[in-house]
Amino acid sequence: MSRDSGLSGPKVLVYQASHPEKFADVLKDLGITNVITAKSSGAAPPDLSEVEVMFGWNIPVDWFARAPKLKWVQWSGAGVDSVAMRRDQIPEGVRLTRILDQFSAPIAEYVFTYLLYITKDVRRQQKSQEQKRWDPFRAELLAGKTIGVAGLGSIGAEIVRKARAFDMKVTGLSATGRNRHLVDVHYTADEWNDFVAPLDVLVLTLPLTDRTRHVIHAPVLERMKREAIIVNIGRGALIRETDLIPRLAAGRIRAAVLDVFEREPLPTDSPLWTLHNAFVSPHMSGPSEVDKTCAFFAENMRRFVQGDPLIGLVDLTRQY
Amino acid sequence: MSRDSGLSGPKVLVYQASHPEKFADVLKDLGITNVITAKSSGAAPPDLSEVEVMFGWNIPVDWFARAPKLKWVQWSGAGVDSVAMRRDQIPEGVRLTRILDQFSAPIAEYVFTYLLYITKDVRRQQKSQEQKRWDPFRAELLAGKTIGVAGLGSIGAEIVRKARAFDMKVTGLSATGRNRHLVDVHYTADEWNDFVAPLDVLVLTLPLTDRTRHVIHAPVLERMKREAIIVNIGRGALIRETDLIPRLAAGRIRAAVLDVFEREPLPTDSPLWTLHNAFVSPHMSGPSEVDKTCAFFAENMRRFVQGDPLIGLVDLTRQY
Repeated sequence: MSRDSGLSGPKVLVYQASHPEKFADVLKDLGITNVITAKSSGAAPPDLSEVEVMFGWNIPVDWFARAPKLKWVQWSGAGVDSVAMRRDQIPEGVRLTRILDQFSAPIAEYVFTYLLYITKDVRRQQKSQEQKRWDPFRAELLAGKTIGVAGLGSIGAEIVRKARAFDMKVTGLSATGRNRHLVDVHYTADEWNDFVAPLDVLVLTLPLTDRTRHVIHAPVLERMKREAIIVNIGRGALIRETDLIPRLAAGRIRAAVLDVFEREPLPTDSPLWTLHNAFVSPHMSGPSEVDKTCAFFAENMRRFVQGDPLIGLVDLTRQY
Repeated sequence: MSRDSGLSGPKVLVYQASHPEKFADVLKDLGITNVITAKSSGAAPPDLSEVEVMFGWNIPVDWFARAPKLKWVQWSGAGVDSVAMRRDQIPEGVRLTRILDQFSAPIAEYVFTYLLYITKDVRRQQKSQEQKRWDPFRAELLAGKTIGVAGLGSIGAEIVRKARAFDMKVTGLSATGRNRHLVDVHYTADEWNDFVAPLDVLVLTLPLTDRTRHVIHAPVLERMKREAIIVNIGRGALIRETDLIPRLAAGRIRAAVLDVFEREPLPTDSPLWTLHNAFVSPHMSGPSEVDKTCAFFAENMRRFVQGDPLIGLVDLTRQY
């Protein structure tokens, strides 16, 4: 990298909601110094005339057209729906990449945290402890239950791996079928009804695209078992919340574990906050880590400079 | 089995704290019909003069000597400390067997339920939800933490397997070293201080014997990290509770997950009920299931009748 470091490298805009200079500091240590930073979409954009590369999260899409030399945008997250769904605003020839593989471990841990919390009824155990009551009961086993993972990218694959260690039956649904060998039964994107019917647990790890928006809506929910637990760690709008909420309230669906929502932060008047079988967390299951994210970007930067293929390239036609 | 079924088989006493007839019914379906039942140690024992086999949990040890034809006792649990530690009362030539392999899945699930509950701070997430607060924070990862499993029998081995799926570093301590190949580093029973020092998580799956009683006492606790979580799913008396409690209260040990106690049910005046970093459950992590337990016994009965080696034979010298 030393040849390309310093101000001689391509000019980079680092954009984050807060503290972009933290990223810039890490990049400096990685030899990437020709950097400008910006943090608020409300403020006027900085001078983008020389910017070739943008690196950040929720970069205003209209900034792309203001950077005539822009060739590549590295999104600092796994989900690119907020930009890919407005692909008409991405200038011809600008490549978009997303982060791969960094979120698998924390997100899969999050999924099993709540699956175990619910099936072992930790709430009941904690309440008994509060009341100093010795109240043994037979807790459920994850072993033997059927989990269906919708979306078999790196996150879905890690959930499958952990599900195997819990001796669950594992099915999957994906558009490409690329990782179909990981699961006992694989379903395609037009087989949602058959996919969800036998599940004890449905986990959504899908990207949000025009095809997956509201894919979990009334007709699919009606095919699910009453005992089913839904876990959404993909994007909120995969689920039509107005279809889910009354079914949770009625016990038609056992529980929903939701880290993402149609509107974030979740509005205070959402019934999801108070439903006893809705487990709400604030989009925290897959935190990006500055160091790892910068290292990913630096590797892609090396490839960009040398003309090698970029990692995590988004197909703007399929939107992820 | 049909040749040996009916009243011609060896006479069996089925003993349980409650509902021994449930077990007798299942055994009948398995072809074992020469059965008498008893349930309370308070009551006078039934006529034991013809009993060759006893099958049950916490059978009064003094009953053994009242059964002159007794040859074999099948304990309906994995831990036999309550009988093996009084081995002087076991008549010469009486074999004792315990249940193997049935408790691994539920107990290992229990361990990871609480490890994830604590490290992901589900309490904080639940409290935020109660208050409708959108409060993201960076949760810890199990991945990369070091777990030490004391006791590498079938239960310990299953905990190791799941720890691998969470990408934890895994060490172990065992007396025999039989399963030492499962762990990254193995310690022997005289290496407790070295074993516990680097651990983020210590899981006790040991049998209770004269050697392991109070093995977790002040000097060992003082070697542990402040960040360490202790999980006891073995027997309560592995831990000297009077040494643990002040260290939990002082934050010298991060947390204790306790399914077993020196006295059970846990007395209401125990500080463990109210310590915020003690997670108390009522000896429920490894529930025995009537059907599975009876199937295990029936297989051993087949071996007993045919003179084959019994499964789960207890070595009364080492007490497990």
